[in-house]
Amino acid sequence: MIAKENIKKIIVNKPLKLDCGKTICDYPLAYETYGKLNEKKDNAILTFHALTGDQFVSGTNPITNKPGWWSHLVGPSKAIDTNKFFVICANVIGGCMGSFGPSNINSKTNKVYGTNFPVITINDMVNAQYNLLEFFKIEKLYSVLGGSMGGMQVLQFVANFPDKTKTAIPIACAASHSAQNIAFNELGRQSIMADSNWKEGNYSNLNLSPDKGLAVARMAAHITYLSKKGLQEKFGRNLQEKDDLNFSFDADFQIESYLRYQGSIFVDRFDANSYLYITRAMDYFDLIKQFKGNLSKAFEKTKTKFFIISFTSDWLYPTSENKEIVIALNSAGANVGFIEITSDKGHDSFLLNVPEFLKTVNNFLESNYK
Amino acid sequence: MIAKENIKKIIVNKPLKLDCGKTICDYPLAYETYGKLNEKKDNAILTFHALTGDQFVSGTNPITNKPGWWSHLVGPSKAIDTNKFFVICANVIGGCMGSFGPSNINSKTNKVYGTNFPVITINDMVNAQYNLLEFFKIEKLYSVLGGSMGGMQVLQFVANFPDKTKTAIPIACAASHSAQNIAFNELGRQSIMADSNWKEGNYSNLNLSPDKGLAVARMAAHITYLSKKGLQEKFGRNLQEKDDLNFSFDADFQIESYLRYQGSIFVDRFDANSYLYITRAMDYFDLIKQFKGNLSKAFEKTKTKFFIISFTSDWLYPTSENKEIVIALNSAGANVGFIEITSDKGHDSFLLNVPEFLKTVNNFLESNYK
Repeated sequence: MIAKENIKKIIVNKPLKLDCGKTICDYPLAYETYGKLNEKKDNAILTFHALTGDQFVSGTNPITNKPGWWSHLVGPSKAIDTNKFFVICANVIGGCMGSFGPSNINSKTNKVYGTNFPVITINDMVNAQYNLLEFFKIEKLYSVLGGSMGGMQVLQFVANFPDKTKTAIPIACAASHSAQNIAFNELGRQSIMADSNWKEGNYSNLNLSPDKGLAVARMAAHITYLSKKGLQEKFGRNLQEKDDLNFSFDADFQIESYLRYQGSIFVDRFDANSYLYITRAMDYFDLIKQFKGNLSKAFEKTKTKFFIISFTSDWLYPTSENKEIVIALNSAGANVGFIEITSDKGHDSFLLNVPEFLKTVNNFLESNYK
Repeated sequence: MIAKENIKKIIVNKPLKLDCGKTICDYPLAYETYGKLNEKKDNAILTFHALTGDQFVSGTNPITNKPGWWSHLVGPSKAIDTNKFFVICANVIGGCMGSFGPSNINSKTNKVYGTNFPVITINDMVNAQYNLLEFFKIEKLYSVLGGSMGGMQVLQFVANFPDKTKTAIPIACAASHSAQNIAFNELGRQSIMADSNWKEGNYSNLNLSPDKGLAVARMAAHITYLSKKGLQEKFGRNLQEKDDLNFSFDADFQIESYLRYQGSIFVDRFDANSYLYITRAMDYFDLIKQFKGNLSKAFEKTKTKFFIISFTSDWLYPTSENKEIVIALNSAGANVGFIEITSDKGHDSFLLNVPEFLKTVNNFLESNYK
């Protein structure tokens, strides 16, 4: 294990004007890489992480000592083969794994930013990460990919930099956040803000932590990541203890213990204010509005070859919303493939070892390389 | 408006052995009636309310001064015509509208019960309400009906008292609570228990109130009552203020204000501990397990004529779960009708003015009466 201070990062000294109007400069952007950049510099893949993800895609996360979140997909001889490709992933700004975020110290006040941190957007995240291309002197990426909020970043990246990637794989995402998704994110935010330890976001400076509120937010999100059928098959009404009901408010059912556990381990690795900022960025994401109601305009100039992936049981970013992206790309005359993968694992499918998913990503990346 | 002390109630002096093993006696059961019981006493309909409902089905709720929760369905010349039928509804035990619940004073300690109240079940609720038949000297009801948790009570009532009602209408419910539904209820409970004012359920005795936690629980539940499509059509990404995003954590989107409002008004009318107890009763409900895995056994002896109603966009109690009841009734040789009503209003449909729903209830009740 290493300390967070020893995470790889660049300090971006080019000013970035955020969508909120503020400008940031000299901010840290933490990243990790897997594989080697070849001489031609044509084998780089920029991966974008989701809401609670980080830059540790593969191998072992040096902070948590757990496997990287996509370690079954990315690595030597894996679907994204790091013997061939150079995979880069950065922690998003607003995050809490080394990049510029609300848990950073504001050098002007010597205090943790908290909610004095500027509200950021998916566009800001992508623009910040673009600096990695300059840092690695990469003229054009081979691919950009990501699921959920990672997929939104893929879409925004191609819209912002139409000639900077050869291929793109948006997975289980949408071109604008739906009312239901905003509702669930707002639920999580309200849960955090309801915690008496939140202190208007100033908890770190008071040595407090809104763990209970953050755990409830995580529980809410976790339910939405799974499908009704998947939950029923995995947990059903199985009891935690073998005999009978407790007639109390302890965890009687396995699903209850599971959720409590998910909440409790999450607070050890995530910052509550980062949760507020990143969910806000997701809710603000609306590529359709950015292009005045015409999504195909976002991809007008692109030569990027797309492949869109959705999952049958994903009710958070259902196939219908993924298809809207396919339709817009088609309408823009872009090169686009699409697959809906059968899985009962819900939105979580993109993070799991779903063989058809891995094979799809592998086929697309291998067949289009050179 | 009247004070809660002046709500109509009976004091049940017959001991009731609860499923948890404890016995209660001399407990209040608050109720309301609409229409008149005829001389033959064959026109009585017992209505069961859902999680946050109460006995004020029609007219004006004298506590909140708002319309009764089914006032568009129940009343003179309405679908359930109180010129013809005598409609009874009781507040469930565990509730907070006059019936025996955790906000009552324990006469032995002179303190509010809080979590010293016994954990109750749907079976206990139904057995407590059965006393109303004796109170009104009704040999046999004309019908029992209810939606959501009210529908579970309908099923339990017929299972417990197979010859005590001529007809039954379970609406938008299930014979056992699914893992996803348990998960959402657990989320609500954890949110309440995370509130630092909850004080292990002892808040009333300390003049505190876990309003923030209860509001978040209500927000979570509210999202599940609506369909993704319904939310999208009603709110979409409409902004609260007309111009643009605030770049803050205030409510930018209408869906956010709506949820915050729903949370804030709920805490004025509902007790947090009642929310814990009633959701627990819902989660414990498993009529299939009660009958050793064979649901049709629950209806073996019944002569009751059933009509089951589900709604297309209800993802909390989807048609598939309602159909399981139809199949079991069929298998028991019972008389059963079924309709799936098209509505994009989600689980909430059963509480709304959905014309096809009203007509269905009206037709069934009118055609089978004499």
